[in-house]
Amino acid sequence: MRSTVNFYLCYLLCLGLGLACVVCVCVWNSQWRGGFAWDGSALQFNWHPVLMVTGLVVVYGIGAVVYRIPLTWGQNKLPWKILHAALMLIALLLSIVGLCAVFDFHNAKHMANLYSIHSWIGITAAALFALQWVVGVAGFLLPCSPVSLRKLMKPVHVWLGGSILLLSIAACISGINEKLIFSLKGSTNETQPYSSLPPEAVLGNSLGVLIVAFGLVVLKILSNYSWQRPDPRPEDVAYAPLFQEENE
Amino acid sequence: MRSTVNFYLCYLLCLGLGLACVVCVCVWNSQWRGGFAWDGSALQFNWHPVLMVTGLVVVYGIGAVVYRIPLTWGQNKLPWKILHAALMLIALLLSIVGLCAVFDFHNAKHMANLYSIHSWIGITAAALFALQWVVGVAGFLLPCSPVSLRKLMKPVHVWLGGSILLLSIAACISGINEKLIFSLKGSTNETQPYSSLPPEAVLGNSLGVLIVAFGLVVLKILSNYSWQRPDPRPEDVAYAPLFQEENE
Repeated sequence: MRSTVNFYLCYLLCLGLGLACVVCVCVWNSQWRGGFAWDGSALQFNWHPVLMVTGLVVVYGIGAVVYRIPLTWGQNKLPWKILHAALMLIALLLSIVGLCAVFDFHNAKHMANLYSIHSWIGITAAALFALQWVVGVAGFLLPCSPVSLRKLMKPVHVWLGGSILLLSIAACISGINEKLIFSLKGSTNETQPYSSLPPEAVLGNSLGVLIVAFGLVVLKILSNYSWQRPDPRPEDVAYAPLFQEENE
Repeated sequence: MRSTVNFYLCYLLCLGLGLACVVCVCVWNSQWRGGFAWDGSALQFNWHPVLMVTGLVVVYGIGAVVYRIPLTWGQNKLPWKILHAALMLIALLLSIVGLCAVFDFHNAKHMANLYSIHSWIGITAAALFALQWVVGVAGFLLPCSPVSLRKLMKPVHVWLGGSILLLSIAACISGINEKLIFSLKGSTNETQPYSSLPPEAVLGNSLGVLIVAFGLVVLKILSNYSWQRPDPRPEDVAYAPLFQEENE
């Protein structure tokens, strides 16, 4: 009972921090960076942080902890598996559009792609996420996938899921740092330098802090064994009809 | 038996990646950045990446997994606790000297301290690490600390330990990105721009990849329940003489 209350407190914190991340990245790019467009200009770039933070961090993190909600434990697992896969698909699509935004912007401006360690870590996170989603759907949702394979895959799936979140966080922090270095040069009258910590820098840095806090809460929820969905009792498995969703 | 073999393979990978990180950061700063000094010049800054990567990532990570080595499980825990605390003290001291290097360099050049999200995340990691070490020694090593307190502290200590590593990795990636942006401007004949991915950029980016890989292996070792030191049997506890080290 106490563990359940603790879970919901942690889950509420997770949702609150996730919402704060999305609000913060949207305010930064709409109010301080000039808003959004899809025309190869800097306004197109602004979609990149918004979509990566929303997709690859917030929706991803909320999708990752779906099975930990105790309310769902007495119920058939299948609808929750579909919700998990659907949330992860939304996260993946947002991330892909976020990547298209930056590639298109770079190409329009004849700038190089994928040279920084930010981009190396970020593209690895996105590629592993796409692989994880495809293998996850094939292995855990398709009825033809054998139970023995699911049992083998599950710890790898959980570990890779946490690792992708760690990569996303490292990519976000280096991306925010890079964006503020490039934008706040202080060489024009429009901006003060990053080193003088103007309001935009405080906002960007705060976004970084919120992302790290959100990630740590999600990883805490994932790593707590008492918050894992309990294994089904053998008599429940006997009644599982079409799908094998209860015995992994 | 299979689990033990898997552990040692993972542990060897961890040691190999840690060594590769240290070699890589030393080669980068000695061969490409001009070497080391303690005179307020850029050569003093070069101590910063070397000491942070060696202390706050590599020695820290190796110190974190000491209890997971199966060879130690049949033995009294106390010497391994002292080794854990000693490795963490070395990691902490290296990190503190690494921070002094960058503060001294900034002050000598009249540059601002602690404005970037890299520095916010990094200083948080170092501060939490210092707190974790002091609380850890007081709670787990001093004989006067009650067993009930140790049992309460242990999951927090383990979770905070992993979180500090995550913060360190995010700080390292953003720091490498920032250093390569600042150093490889391409505006002089001495360097090519970061965006053209010259050999130094490949080396710096590779260091980032090695740090992330090392961190993921350490977190994998820490999160695997079958690799945790088993709880002692009650009859062993009865023989624990001065220290209460066996019953947490």
